[in-house]
Amino acid sequence: MPKDELKSEYKLVGTRPDRPDGLDKVTGRARYGADFSMPGMLFAAVVRSPHAHAKILKIDASKALALEGVKAVVTRADFPDGLTGEDWNLQENTIANDTALYDGHAVAAVAATSALLARDAAKLIEVEYQVLPHVTDVDEAFAPGAPAVRPGSADHSVSSREVDLPDNVRHNVVREIEFGHGDVEAGFAEADLVREGTYKTEATHQGYIEPHACVGQMGADGRGEMWVCTQGQWFIRKFCAAVLGIEASGLRVTASEIGGGFGGKTTIFMEPLALALSRKAGGRPVKLVMTRSEVLRATGPTASASMDVKIGMKKDGTLTAARAVFRMQGGAFPGSPVDLALTCAFASYKLPNVEHIGYDILANRPKCAAYRAPGAPMGAFAVESLIDEMARELGLDPLDVRLKNAVAEGDKSSYGPTYNRIGLVEVLEATKAHPNLSVPLGPNQGRGVATGFWFNHGGETSVSVSVTEDGTATVSIGTPDIGGLRASIALMVAETFGIGYDDVRVNVVETGALGFNEPSHGSRATFASGKAAVTSAQSCIKQMCQRAADKWGIDAEAVEWVDGAAQPAGPNAGKFPPMTMKEIAETMGATGGPISGHNETTMDGVGASFGTHVVDVEVDPETGRTTILRYLVVQDAGKAVHPSYVEGQYQGGAVQGIGWALNEEYVYGKDGRLQNPIFLDYRVPVASDLPMIDTVIVEVPNPGHPYGVRGVGETGITPPLPAVANAIADAVGVRMKHLPMNPPKVLAAIKAKANG
Amino acid sequence: MPKDELKSEYKLVGTRPDRPDGLDKVTGRARYGADFSMPGMLFAAVVRSPHAHAKILKIDASKALALEGVKAVVTRADFPDGLTGEDWNLQENTIANDTALYDGHAVAAVAATSALLARDAAKLIEVEYQVLPHVTDVDEAFAPGAPAVRPGSADHSVSSREVDLPDNVRHNVVREIEFGHGDVEAGFAEADLVREGTYKTEATHQGYIEPHACVGQMGADGRGEMWVCTQGQWFIRKFCAAVLGIEASGLRVTASEIGGGFGGKTTIFMEPLALALSRKAGGRPVKLVMTRSEVLRATGPTASASMDVKIGMKKDGTLTAARAVFRMQGGAFPGSPVDLALTCAFASYKLPNVEHIGYDILANRPKCAAYRAPGAPMGAFAVESLIDEMARELGLDPLDVRLKNAVAEGDKSSYGPTYNRIGLVEVLEATKAHPNLSVPLGPNQGRGVATGFWFNHGGETSVSVSVTEDGTATVSIGTPDIGGLRASIALMVAETFGIGYDDVRVNVVETGALGFNEPSHGSRATFASGKAAVTSAQSCIKQMCQRAADKWGIDAEAVEWVDGAAQPAGPNAGKFPPMTMKEIAETMGATGGPISGHNETTMDGVGASFGTHVVDVEVDPETGRTTILRYLVVQDAGKAVHPSYVEGQYQGGAVQGIGWALNEEYVYGKDGRLQNPIFLDYRVPVASDLPMIDTVIVEVPNPGHPYGVRGVGETGITPPLPAVANAIADAVGVRMKHLPMNPPKVLAAIKAKANG
Repeated sequence: MPKDELKSEYKLVGTRPDRPDGLDKVTGRARYGADFSMPGMLFAAVVRSPHAHAKILKIDASKALALEGVKAVVTRADFPDGLTGEDWNLQENTIANDTALYDGHAVAAVAATSALLARDAAKLIEVEYQVLPHVTDVDEAFAPGAPAVRPGSADHSVSSREVDLPDNVRHNVVREIEFGHGDVEAGFAEADLVREGTYKTEATHQGYIEPHACVGQMGADGRGEMWVCTQGQWFIRKFCAAVLGIEASGLRVTASEIGGGFGGKTTIFMEPLALALSRKAGGRPVKLVMTRSEVLRATGPTASASMDVKIGMKKDGTLTAARAVFRMQGGAFPGSPVDLALTCAFASYKLPNVEHIGYDILANRPKCAAYRAPGAPMGAFAVESLIDEMARELGLDPLDVRLKNAVAEGDKSSYGPTYNRIGLVEVLEATKAHPNLSVPLGPNQGRGVATGFWFNHGGETSVSVSVTEDGTATVSIGTPDIGGLRASIALMVAETFGIGYDDVRVNVVETGALGFNEPSHGSRATFASGKAAVTSAQSCIKQMCQRAADKWGIDAEAVEWVDGAAQPAGPNAGKFPPMTMKEIAETMGATGGPISGHNETTMDGVGASFGTHVVDVEVDPETGRTTILRYLVVQDAGKAVHPSYVEGQYQGGAVQGIGWALNEEYVYGKDGRLQNPIFLDYRVPVASDLPMIDTVIVEVPNPGHPYGVRGVGETGITPPLPAVANAIADAVGVRMKHLPMNPPKVLAAIKAKANG
Repeated sequence: MPKDELKSEYKLVGTRPDRPDGLDKVTGRARYGADFSMPGMLFAAVVRSPHAHAKILKIDASKALALEGVKAVVTRADFPDGLTGEDWNLQENTIANDTALYDGHAVAAVAATSALLARDAAKLIEVEYQVLPHVTDVDEAFAPGAPAVRPGSADHSVSSREVDLPDNVRHNVVREIEFGHGDVEAGFAEADLVREGTYKTEATHQGYIEPHACVGQMGADGRGEMWVCTQGQWFIRKFCAAVLGIEASGLRVTASEIGGGFGGKTTIFMEPLALALSRKAGGRPVKLVMTRSEVLRATGPTASASMDVKIGMKKDGTLTAARAVFRMQGGAFPGSPVDLALTCAFASYKLPNVEHIGYDILANRPKCAAYRAPGAPMGAFAVESLIDEMARELGLDPLDVRLKNAVAEGDKSSYGPTYNRIGLVEVLEATKAHPNLSVPLGPNQGRGVATGFWFNHGGETSVSVSVTEDGTATVSIGTPDIGGLRASIALMVAETFGIGYDDVRVNVVETGALGFNEPSHGSRATFASGKAAVTSAQSCIKQMCQRAADKWGIDAEAVEWVDGAAQPAGPNAGKFPPMTMKEIAETMGATGGPISGHNETTMDGVGASFGTHVVDVEVDPETGRTTILRYLVVQDAGKAVHPSYVEGQYQGGAVQGIGWALNEEYVYGKDGRLQNPIFLDYRVPVASDLPMIDTVIVEVPNPGHPYGVRGVGETGITPPLPAVANAIADAVGVRMKHLPMNPPKVLAAIKAKANG
């Protein structure tokens, strides 16, 4: 749809009706991953490596199997051989073959008639290990001569450009990336100020409230079913089929309600274990629910990063050149988001000369998973910290520097493509105008700003819309509702049909009921499933107009759809009374049959979202503790279909970023074991740590979506890391370059500054 | 498809692969209605009237509600007022308003934390009744001056022609039907032999093994879910929505596996009670499972019938005229299948003059439901008995009489339409040729033949087929698999795609996932869902050819689909190697997106099925007991997609008909209460009662279906009632005109004949 046709005001889109899942969730009626049971169900427990790196010499399950009620034990021997590429990585991460690659790596699993019995049986499974040297830190893993996490690991690389280095020289590097444009050295030469810095972030976890949970059932015929807490039931199906060596269509996967995912539930961790146990236990269903420490030890946190950034700036703030060299470890498998981190690093800025270099590195840690704008927060931390430092050095307003360099429609991006209509300038201007910017600051208080970006993703999408026999509408989508999707799609479909919001029910369906759908990831669900739902509804409208035309004996082209009814148009206008959707629906069986619309596509038209955050902090100089005084998120939503949910996304992204900035980190001991695998020690921010997060929704409609929607879920976590660092620098004059900025680190920096 | 293009041989269609649900069903893995549980689930019990007809003066649930663990009690007051027509009938049958209309009529329901507690609580609900006069027998209910089952009931009639008789004159008659053609009296005048007879059949139950069971959940917002044993989840949704006054799209209904339905599970009985209880109990899920006596007392048996038939025949067996006057009671509600009984009564024969008259009558019995070819067996009993008697009187072979009058393509049917291609003549010829016909009979042994007919039904149908990412196929249908549907559809879809039978998984999906589907009734499922699946697969093939054409840079018209692969055709033949479905599927995300095909339609092209049965019996003259010696079913399947399932349908229909003929009946006492509501007293045939039923599948392809399929499920129950009666007449010379022909009745007839 040409952008000029995009309206900004609608009857329903943009309103804030009750959430359709709200009642279920507050009354406990919503069913999450662990809330599903089946007759004859068994319960599973997993035996995990206590070593960061160890040869598995022997697994003896005889004592466990001797317990009454223990029905099956699986090891890697119960999975097919011969997988390659990412399939092999997924299988190896699900259950170790001859080597445990990280603390918590699954080596066996057992199913028994009760959860308690399964846990007891797991303790009786004896595993002999030969401990091997390990490495967990990203810089140590990158260093020449580091312990080899997986000798020959380049064989399993997913990269387009595999690294083939001589033995003992950075053999944990499985991928090297390089891209850019212009002449960076010439650009630096043009600059009035050139600065560089090295930044480091630690791995963090998505911290979803609900641990992974599933019930799987599979018979000897390779056909099965799974109920699972996931962001993407088709990915579960596809990955489980690959890991188990069965046909994808043989498995029906139903997504439960989800207690948070944030990217961490777009892949598999223990799901194939439940299915393999079921297959071995004669097809009895098997429930597998992770504990919190299993979630932290053995699911996918984000990568840890070590980053060098160099930037050239003119006196007026104009950027002349930039270079980023990012090193990221994504656990014992290829796939850190170093490519995405680089892609987003400078995406907010017009840059004539830019160079990106990245290294994907293995370490003895769990396989990383996506986490909200994967990679982008780390890159933003490095780049936005350095820009802030340079702006201060040149005496420029940091927002003005960003406005001066901000990309707009028609600009070539730092990563290649030319931007369509985007809203960064509008976001920066709205930020400047916000009252938070003029609140006076006191002693030890500081203000930090930062900007962030996420492309957003379209992805493979299948949606069906059916006209219900009473004139309401049933929408079938394949993307789980992780943040208001059902409400948003109901609003768009109701708007399209011209019926009430309550007259549309949006159902997240199982894999046996629709074509392929990528998960609710990449901020795609409201954009892509929403666009496909609108397209499907439009197909229904076309058919309803045809039914009315048939009844009236006129051409379907002479019928238009207005306010939920077909009405004769043009020369036939007024000749017949309008036929409402309800009237058409009630007779559709007799006028040709059920009316449904469908859309399957790899969705195009995606629109990027930019956001700017402003945070005021107070740092206690005696303890190093940072308090968030106020926090502002300004972000372009394209069109906020249900503004409350959009605000929720903005706030949630900011809060997760604040946690990452100030407290969260994976702490590994010298033994390579995770030291803080519970929420008492892995410190996420709680409500009492935070003020209400202020939000401003900027709406620059995305011309690629019928209602102008951009994805909004991920951009919000990109600016907080540098925004908080910039505010701390503003408050107490210390530049923190290694996250998290927890009290001991900030206090040490303050003392070092006082002493230095 | 023109019939000449219909092949009779295929690679897969017509083979007998393993049943996809076989393993699940024999290992107990298949989940039936009662096999579903949810967290926080309550259990329900129903309070039922012990009176055939009684005013409900008061319902006092206070003692029940005082029990700890009792969460809700519902009565009719918890349902909306103001329903009309069949919606009102369904609501009234679900739960009585101010009058209990039959023994077993629900008057209240209770939900509690255990099934035992719910039953105890139900006993504490005190109902005061004022007993009213009742009538259960069809002839007594028809008689002038009979007790009025529902004064003013014509107000709720579903008929097109309502009866408006003066008070006290046949006020239980709610519908009168009349149709026919020719001049019946002139026809009788032409005949050499005119005979008439009066026949009576008693109500029988479908006798499915699995009682009705469901779990329902609904909140105050009118949105809910249901897991239920049903033949049609969309009918459950539609009827529950009507009875509860909610939007149909608000309810998601999932069909469980089904332990038999035979028409009896196409409507609702207690499902709205579970939802109403859930709504009242704060949205907790409620499980409701009927006992066998509840099934027999309060679900839908078939109607009982009283029938007058008059036929004129020439000496050579040619039929000249026929008249049928059928009276049927379908319980306390309009809707006996008297119309269908009349329609099928003479459908096998060319009849220049025919008259049909029918009366739909109320009685104090449960609302009848469909039972396999509803109405047809009763009509066949009357007509085929009289034809047999007349053939014997004229010394003609009963099969020859049927052949002489048999309808064929182009004939006008007795009920109006002109036949398309049908296979009655082929069936009769195959019957004559069968070796069973020449087995010699001994003393007290007899042979009976009869022919039967069922139109078959198309109905509203929605199916989707998706190409799975590994090149297999996922089929989503909305018709539960009651007799091999998944296997049959997998065969047709695999044949269409040119892939393996095991590469297709057919999923019966919930109402939130597809457009409207009528139930698996009317012998429609393999025909209609199969045809829609083939159409959908063809749409996928077209899209796959397009993807190949895009890759090859040629026109899609220049691509053909052969043996599971796209290949260049015509001038491009051989230019590129074929692209298999697997190759196209693996890359579809990058070539445009997921590939699915859909078909929503009210299905046309239905093909009628005729069958002829031959039964040999031996009657013990001392006890009147009839033993089935051998039994032959010959029927036209159009094309038997999976012949084992077709044979199963033939055998199952015959066995149910034998039970109806010999033993089964609803026995009401003088108090109007059902005397035999358990399987010990309601006597269905068991394996030891029967020989192996011989079957012959005749295949006269239906030109309205891509593989020539006709429905096969229902025709098979139509001939057994008269076939057995004719065999008994042949064996011992007594003409039984009132079913069942149980030993006491047959013995009485033998004695009467000896005495007469």
